[in-house]
Amino acid sequence: MDLKNRRIAVIGAGIADEEIYTTAYQVGKLLGEKGAIIYTGGLGGVMEAACRGAFEVGALTVGILPGNKAEEANPFVRIPIVTNMGEGRNVILVRCAEVVVAISGGYGTLSEIALALKMWKPVIGLKTWENIPGVVYVSSPEEVLSKILEFFT
Amino acid sequence: MDLKNRRIAVIGAGIADEEIYTTAYQVGKLLGEKGAIIYTGGLGGVMEAACRGAFEVGALTVGILPGNKAEEANPFVRIPIVTNMGEGRNVILVRCAEVVVAISGGYGTLSEIALALKMWKPVIGLKTWENIPGVVYVSSPEEVLSKILEFFT
Amino acid sequence: MDLKNRRIAVIGAGIADEEIYTTAYQVGKLLGEKGAIIYTGGLGGVMEAACRGAFEVGALTVGILPGNKAEEANPFVRIPIVTNMGEGRNVILVRCAEVVVAISGGYGTLSEIALALKMWKPVIGLKTWENIPGVVYVSSPEEVLSKILEFFT
Amino acid sequence: MDLKNRRIAVIGAGIADEEIYTTAYQVGKLLGEKGAIIYTGGLGGVMEAACRGAFEVGALTVGILPGNKAEEANPFVRIPIVTNMGEGRNVILVRCAEVVVAISGGYGTLSEIALALKMWKPVIGLKTWENIPGVVYVSSPEEVLSKILEFFT
Repeated sequence: MDLKNRRIAVIGAGIADEEIYTTAYQVGKLLGEKGAIIYTGGLGGVMEAACRGAFEVGALTVGILPGNKAEEANPFVRIPIVTNMGEGRNVILVRCAEVVVAISGGYGTLSEIALALKMWKPVIGLKTWENIPGVVYVSSPEEVLSKILEFFT
Repeated sequence: MDLKNRRIAVIGAGIADEEIYTTAYQVGKLLGEKGAIIYTGGLGGVMEAACRGAFEVGALTVGILPGNKAEEANPFVRIPIVTNMGEGRNVILVRCAEVVVAISGGYGTLSEIALALKMWKPVIGLKTWENIPGVVYVSSPEEVLSKILEFFT
Repeated sequence: MDLKNRRIAVIGAGIADEEIYTTAYQVGKLLGEKGAIIYTGGLGGVMEAACRGAFEVGALTVGILPGNKAEEANPFVRIPIVTNMGEGRNVILVRCAEVVVAISGGYGTLSEIALALKMWKPVIGLKTWENIPGVVYVSSPEEVLSKILEFFT
Repeated sequence: MDLKNRRIAVIGAGIADEEIYTTAYQVGKLLGEKGAIIYTGGLGGVMEAACRGAFEVGALTVGILPGNKAEEANPFVRIPIVTNMGEGRNVILVRCAEVVVAISGGYGTLSEIALALKMWKPVIGLKTWENIPGVVYVSSPEEVLSKILEFFT
């Protein structure tokens, strides 16, 4: 439980192929097993997969939702936050986190990476936007975990 | 566990005397025992008391914080949400909730009562702003619980 | 031009009868003639009337819009601000203003009155929510103007 | 006046060297001469330079400010919008605009570029983050203007 109550955001595409889904699931699971609270944008794809991995090992999962209804959250979100702010919720998501993990993703994810770096938060990148100065790139869920454990040592 | 995963906001003054603190604590405890998730503004007074009551019976407690630091949350907040939006967080707090319970409170609380009514959410008032049309006024924590159980029946 | 570039919010109901529309129009006109910038929620009713009065005398009018489209602004808004935050825009509207004038209005207006008072801003009330401690109640557009001129003396 | 009342955001670094300042000033001036309303983040550097160029030719300039005080706006902002949302204001700034022009810039600017692309808005890049797919790159203020005139034809 080395990450007990640590707040970690997992960000990424709202639609994921099997490889990306499995990767994000694995990240959620590994972090959840250590006691982290997983914050995501609460919708599908990478967000769902990360919540699912964490949820299945009993971790807390938070969905910072863009819309007006808690019901838009994926079923693995335990705590829905209903912002009704559209992409404005990206800023809150990043601000909640101590570390941000980016997995794949489009422009929304890029905005979150940039916002996190702007706020001086560590960003770990896995199969995501390349060559962003400041991002710590890794190549597996296990490496995500080991990097994060390093940050908190 | 009749309120399992129901999202209930408890709003009220950031500074509370003993009577109000005990009242809010009791409300948090009674709702927490039924399995509700307690959403508050995350700071002191009524917010702390409600979180504490819920926390001590093992319920989930969310603090929708106005500032920029998770550390400003009271110690009974399990999930801090860091909005950095000042009073703007009042709108998110109300939007997250299915029911809002107002206990005492000043202008901030009044704004939340009005926002909740604007969003057509039930508002239960206990020792708070009087004569607001639409608020369901009660006189004890037990009555808060029984009113809320009615809403969800 | 005693109010040149002063930022004054006019808040109130989105639907107005003739009396209220005329009142809000007159308030916008009187303040606009003095050079104030009129901030409103950008939609219909009181918001439109106040913008119209100010617009017709050449004053700047700002609409802090709840939705996602500049096109939802009434035709007398010169500068649309597209927040996509729903009622969250109420907080920004109030925060922009040095003084808030409330004319009629429902729960949304009540939330703005409370937010303004919470932020220690002067609130002038005309045919609006009664008996809110802290609101300076007046009974005509001319009195709105004279009160505001006093504030800035 | 081919851009009359068109809403154009100019984004970029809060600190600018002489070359960048002059570039942004020129962009503001060229767009302002055509009647555009210039939206910026309201602070220094590129934001100030663009406002200044537009202000000096009589155009409207809007500053979507991150903080809590209108006074933090640069002196060439005619309409301050006080969000108190920190980086959250980036989202509102982009949402107000029909076209976004990025000049130089750091992570904040990158977040705005990404948000604009996410919202399907045209982004013109001048001496800014390179190789972002979707950005229309140009090399002079005159080219910024001609591209924007094309968009609105």
